[in-house]
Amino acid sequence: MSSALTLGLDADDTLWENQARFDFAQEKLRNLLSRWADGEVVDETLLDIERNNVKRYGYGVKSFTLSSIQAAIELTQGEVNADLTRSIIENGWWIIEHPVEILSGVVETLDVLSKSYELLLITKGDPTDQYKKISSSGLSHYFKGIEVVREKDSKTYEEVLQRHKVNVEEFIMVGNSVPSDILPVLTIGGRAIHVPHHSTWKHEHIDESEIKDFIFSVAASFDQLPDILMTY
Amino acid sequence: MSSALTLGLDADDTLWENQARFDFAQEKLRNLLSRWADGEVVDETLLDIERNNVKRYGYGVKSFTLSSIQAAIELTQGEVNADLTRSIIENGWWIIEHPVEILSGVVETLDVLSKSYELLLITKGDPTDQYKKISSSGLSHYFKGIEVVREKDSKTYEEVLQRHKVNVEEFIMVGNSVPSDILPVLTIGGRAIHVPHHSTWKHEHIDESEIKDFIFSVAASFDQLPDILMTY
Repeated sequence: MSSALTLGLDADDTLWENQARFDFAQEKLRNLLSRWADGEVVDETLLDIERNNVKRYGYGVKSFTLSSIQAAIELTQGEVNADLTRSIIENGWWIIEHPVEILSGVVETLDVLSKSYELLLITKGDPTDQYKKISSSGLSHYFKGIEVVREKDSKTYEEVLQRHKVNVEEFIMVGNSVPSDILPVLTIGGRAIHVPHHSTWKHEHIDESEIKDFIFSVAASFDQLPDILMTY
Repeated sequence: MSSALTLGLDADDTLWENQARFDFAQEKLRNLLSRWADGEVVDETLLDIERNNVKRYGYGVKSFTLSSIQAAIELTQGEVNADLTRSIIENGWWIIEHPVEILSGVVETLDVLSKSYELLLITKGDPTDQYKKISSSGLSHYFKGIEVVREKDSKTYEEVLQRHKVNVEEFIMVGNSVPSDILPVLTIGGRAIHVPHHSTWKHEHIDESEIKDFIFSVAASFDQLPDILMTY
């Protein structure tokens, strides 16, 4: 174990539940639209609209809400009314107001890790929502730096490391998303540990062939990190 | 003129038009809702809803769009239909897709200023929208650093200055908004130059008594900055 190492930690679905909030809200959307379309059709329509809106809106709750309203317009063939629209807006508020649920083992493990490593929180998403979650999580004090970034690509990681004066050879990223937390870090010469989450955002499913040339550790759970890092 | 000085520059309505895009979109909203309410009632209702939503949504186009939809639900007393909702969503897209209009004299002045000062762009708002504007403005190369912040309060300015290793005594903030660009910088011991814009966001109107204890320069136009700075 070397104290010169810096760990980057993803937040959503690595430190706390995130996808579950959206899944639950999407389940509510399916119910709201059940008169007009099957659940799977609602899911597919919403996903198409969200993908189309990412450039326009970025990620997060506001995008989800606006895309949900568009899905309702499309799927009800114009029958969407004020009550339904209001319910969709309130569904977004539900996500925003939902308390942060820290994943099992995270607090104890951060307690251990923060004694041996510099920790950076590196998270993507709507900043209003992200900072609210970081603040109410009570975990901020474990981190030397907090970065809410727009895209988790190689360029962004290079900028973050430069800002914090961290050499990429001494950087290990930890997160649940292979395309966001693992591959871009490996690409620039860093290391990464994958901590899969039980649910994964559909936009992030990737082809096995894309990862076959990369080597990274996989932790079955967050609390295995100290042991895995002993071998680095 | 001292080359040790760092200038912070606001972007929206200091370097380029911003409020005008929202004013135009709000004019369109008034037209869309004219069957149900007078223009002034639309404005007041929207402003109330926006103020109420700031904590929830932050600032920017997505907030504006979601608040506009809420205003439509309220003002039409439930008569809002799919066509109207779609038009409101497209009104937001119009803002997003509107080309950046750089204010008169800005390019020439940045050209002059960047030869004598370190420039930091410090802007507030929806990051997706802000970065899109910064990138398409073609002005990024004038700035040593670009900061899209959530709130322009004293704490944020302190963090930005610390990040860029700038002493507050050597920092001068330039912008169109007294509460966001001027007062918080003066509060922490920096200096500030107000460059008023012909329109100012209603949320930002402040009481004269709040500014009477502060001293700052006012530039009639952006191109006066080099002359004013000669006296610093």
